[in-house]
Amino acid sequence: MWFQKTVQLTPKSRGFHLVTDEIVHQLPSLNQIKTGQLSLLLQHTSASLSLNENADPTVRTDLETVFNKLVPENHPDYQHTFEGPDDLPAHIKSALLGVQLTLPVSNGQLALGTWQGIVLGEHRNRGGSRRIVATLMGDG
Amino acid sequence: MWFQKTVQLTPKSRGFHLVTDEIVHQLPSLNQIKTGQLSLLLQHTSASLSLNENADPTVRTDLETVFNKLVPENHPDYQHTFEGPDDLPAHIKSALLGVQLTLPVSNGQLALGTWQGIVLGEHRNRGGSRRIVATLMGDG
Amino acid sequence: MWFQKTVQLTPKSRGFHLVTDEIVHQLPSLNQIKTGQLSLLLQHTSASLSLNENADPTVRTDLETVFNKLVPENHPDYQHTFEGPDDLPAHIKSALLGVQLTLPVSNGQLALGTWQGIVLGEHRNRGGSRRIVATLMGDG
Repeated sequence: MWFQKTVQLTPKSRGFHLVTDEIVHQLPSLNQIKTGQLSLLLQHTSASLSLNENADPTVRTDLETVFNKLVPENHPDYQHTFEGPDDLPAHIKSALLGVQLTLPVSNGQLALGTWQGIVLGEHRNRGGSRRIVATLMGDG
Repeated sequence: MWFQKTVQLTPKSRGFHLVTDEIVHQLPSLNQIKTGQLSLLLQHTSASLSLNENADPTVRTDLETVFNKLVPENHPDYQHTFEGPDDLPAHIKSALLGVQLTLPVSNGQLALGTWQGIVLGEHRNRGGSRRIVATLMGDG
Repeated sequence: MWFQKTVQLTPKSRGFHLVTDEIVHQLPSLNQIKTGQLSLLLQHTSASLSLNENADPTVRTDLETVFNKLVPENHPDYQHTFEGPDDLPAHIKSALLGVQLTLPVSNGQLALGTWQGIVLGEHRNRGGSRRIVATLMGDG
């Protein structure tokens, strides 16, 4: 069984956001899969999709702090500057964190770890709504 | 053909460890797949799963050295500190390296490059046993 | 439907290169997939495969600049030095950026975002030709 759908996320502020529920709620077909997987592709190059802790929100605050230090804005070496100081660093963060996840599905549910959630990294100051192509496959 | 199983890794010391054999030995069904793939999800947020050199062990020593410098412990900006100084850096390293791999299977074997191995990054001082959900799919 | 093939890339200079077309041209079977996905595994540990902007080439120039600063050559702590000063940094960049992508296929085409392209990071000074195992799967 194969199923594909574009999932739209509401606009988020710059930073890291838990989006597991927002994605799963748009995929009612998930509960028809007994053994399979869900592949997600974020169709953008200035945001990211990763897995991280779903409990204490200070982990996500610290992710934003650390990535801003790892990839600072306004570095004199940057050539790609015409889309604003947050743009090139956003492309680098997107490359470091990735935009693609393939997750196991078991008995109609995502088989994540107890403390794992899907995290959108919004790396632009005003990124707007973000699109994910979700591909579900498996035994029904 | 779809097959799913939880693979348990023995506890590892902090650092980077080759785990290709430990995973493959727990997946005898692999040799039933002619053309397909194996998806692995490490169900943790303070360890990582990546591919790297399977030969000279100093590459893995250097990975530990470099990631400890990239993401230092005890930075005064960190807010998530109550689980110990190694915890927040472990979450960051897990996000940078990732926890998910999808690997080709050909004639019953993983089709990795000659020098590629699956590497567990254990980023906690005492991470304990780690769990991987393995999903096998393909033509039998 | 399952289909697997090794795709060979021509040798590239050190840096980041758009390779979407070079890969797709070697996969004519792509247009037989109505709903499915394409998994790519770069079979090397000193190069990387990621998604990034397919338009302004200065983004790729800046990727090379930033990753050279994040992972400098000739650091006195490195132990794995016998393959040249560019080798160990190449392994680290490969781990940071990853070597594996799973991409949605829709109506015979890759369903990437408008501004997304597949990017080979060649992290060696003379990396030579690189190999990718491409696995296509889906409903025909």
